[in-house]
Amino acid sequence: MSDTAVILFNLGGPTAPDTVKPFLFNLFNDRAIIGAPQPVRWLLARLIAGRRAPVAQDIYAHLGGKSPIHEETDAQAAALEAVLRDRLGPASAPSVHVVMRYWGRRAEAVARDLAQRGVRRTVLLPLYPQFSTTTSASSVREWNGAAASAGLGPAAGGICCYPVNAGFIAAMADRIAETLAGHDGDPPRILFSAHGLPEKVIAAGDPYRWQVERTAAALVEALGDAAADSANCYQSRVGPLKWIGPSTADEIRRAGAAGKPVLVAPIAFVSEHSETLVELDIEYRKVAEDAGVPAYLRAPAVGTHPAFIAGLADMVQTVLARGGLEAESGGRLCPADRTGCPLAAGEA
Amino acid sequence: MSDTAVILFNLGGPTAPDTVKPFLFNLFNDRAIIGAPQPVRWLLARLIAGRRAPVAQDIYAHLGGKSPIHEETDAQAAALEAVLRDRLGPASAPSVHVVMRYWGRRAEAVARDLAQRGVRRTVLLPLYPQFSTTTSASSVREWNGAAASAGLGPAAGGICCYPVNAGFIAAMADRIAETLAGHDGDPPRILFSAHGLPEKVIAAGDPYRWQVERTAAALVEALGDAAADSANCYQSRVGPLKWIGPSTADEIRRAGAAGKPVLVAPIAFVSEHSETLVELDIEYRKVAEDAGVPAYLRAPAVGTHPAFIAGLADMVQTVLARGGLEAESGGRLCPADRTGCPLAAGEA
Repeated sequence: MSDTAVILFNLGGPTAPDTVKPFLFNLFNDRAIIGAPQPVRWLLARLIAGRRAPVAQDIYAHLGGKSPIHEETDAQAAALEAVLRDRLGPASAPSVHVVMRYWGRRAEAVARDLAQRGVRRTVLLPLYPQFSTTTSASSVREWNGAAASAGLGPAAGGICCYPVNAGFIAAMADRIAETLAGHDGDPPRILFSAHGLPEKVIAAGDPYRWQVERTAAALVEALGDAAADSANCYQSRVGPLKWIGPSTADEIRRAGAAGKPVLVAPIAFVSEHSETLVELDIEYRKVAEDAGVPAYLRAPAVGTHPAFIAGLADMVQTVLARGGLEAESGGRLCPADRTGCPLAAGEA
Repeated sequence: MSDTAVILFNLGGPTAPDTVKPFLFNLFNDRAIIGAPQPVRWLLARLIAGRRAPVAQDIYAHLGGKSPIHEETDAQAAALEAVLRDRLGPASAPSVHVVMRYWGRRAEAVARDLAQRGVRRTVLLPLYPQFSTTTSASSVREWNGAAASAGLGPAAGGICCYPVNAGFIAAMADRIAETLAGHDGDPPRILFSAHGLPEKVIAAGDPYRWQVERTAAALVEALGDAAADSANCYQSRVGPLKWIGPSTADEIRRAGAAGKPVLVAPIAFVSEHSETLVELDIEYRKVAEDAGVPAYLRAPAVGTHPAFIAGLADMVQTVLARGGLEAESGGRLCPADRTGCPLAAGEA
């Protein structure tokens, strides 16, 4: 068995109704989410989790009391592991593991488990195509601490972001095209919807919005005429701060006023969870109805789309190659007939 | 103290007259040097080492019975460690260690020592600017085995080759310019001399010759008019096989026939050892005299030239940065004002 492990990061979510509150507490107790120092953050997290829990429990009640993110992410991990095994052979293919930031398989337990299994090399791959200090950075920071405590040592490498990864874009474009194919009538306006963030986070230098815009632009290019009418917008606003916009709800209302059908495509989530299944499919669909939108379509998240999984595998292989020898120039330097180059056969 | 260590690789050499034979045995018992399987290789190595030892002992007698490569390489390691400490601060600067392939500080002892000191991350940096299966690959292969046995785990990364590294080229050009500055009379023909290899090694795909030619071309460009008359050639041939050419001795004779002074620049050794101090300074100087070469100059190896050490430090920092997070594109993806990008402050 390979001594290399790939770590996929995501938020996690409640696994039962009585885990909604501790999930929310963990979320708001993250200094990447609430900047206040301890013990203020702890107190605030208790307060907000207590206040938000009934609302969130109501949301998760629509999903059987739990978030599907765990099953969805496990399926992605299994698909990625299978592709890597096909490509690299069973002996050298890395195993793939899921670490959830706020609930489910947590960093500490996974790190301890991997150390016991004799894992020597880890590759970090957040399931957030667009980097944010509030998501990817928070996950990687927690993991690095847990890995050090478990004696795992620093990661061999990782990918911070892949907003225009060819596989991700192809998969998302395909999800949108499939959804369009099932629609009769006027071509809809495509709303590329990403989770929002407070404006002050972006003002402090967070690259998330810039990267989300790159994703939307890449999709516009990939979709061609089908995306002739499109907009980038942000969903899921909570709290009293001013968030980045335009909001997805406002964009839906604007389409309603123009009599345009809409197709909402979640471009910053790679699996289904409450933000897609409840917010987009129930709440925003209601907004669309109220606004007189003639048709409301929603593209699925990329999930285990083969192109997306292949794109993840490509990045893992890139990091594994970079973790070995490389020419000063980064990639391969020698001409193709110099087969003795250590990068020729991926042996490095 | 940092848990990161840089490993510099070189050949090593005899440390006393009675170590000449075991040094030669280790050299010829390397399957990268003699391809025969064991136990044939072991027997051949014993035979060749026994036969070559008297000749080699005579060579090393000119150097006080030992190779200066250990002191020269230790000085490079100390200089690199100092530059990294200046750049990164004492807490996060890696320590720098020397591993010799055939004699001196060997991989096994160094790996065990680093594991005991709690080193968690290693960066591999062969002191061979041009990659060869017979040098860099052999050193790295031995190291990887030793590191695994010692429980060190795989390296965080390494540089296989840097034939046109800006610091290396600047340092070597400077060494040549200094040597030219001490010369009166006709401008010499510059002979860029590299250690040769059997032609069959190159035919099998070894990139060494291609990389040596890149180094020579970069030096011609850096030296401008001073290198208007120059040639690339190969020294140190031993054994019955046909080696790559032209040979440095033939190039010296060709210059003698043309009445041209020569300057020999060792471009594939970065420190002084028997190939420079005995072969170039004594044997080939005699060839030059016999051939009627009007002046025979020899540029020193780069040694601890500040530009060379700075170039090594640049590469170490590149590998350390790549060992952390990176964008799918390899380098930084986000615009400069996105200071929350994990690569913005080198925090990754």
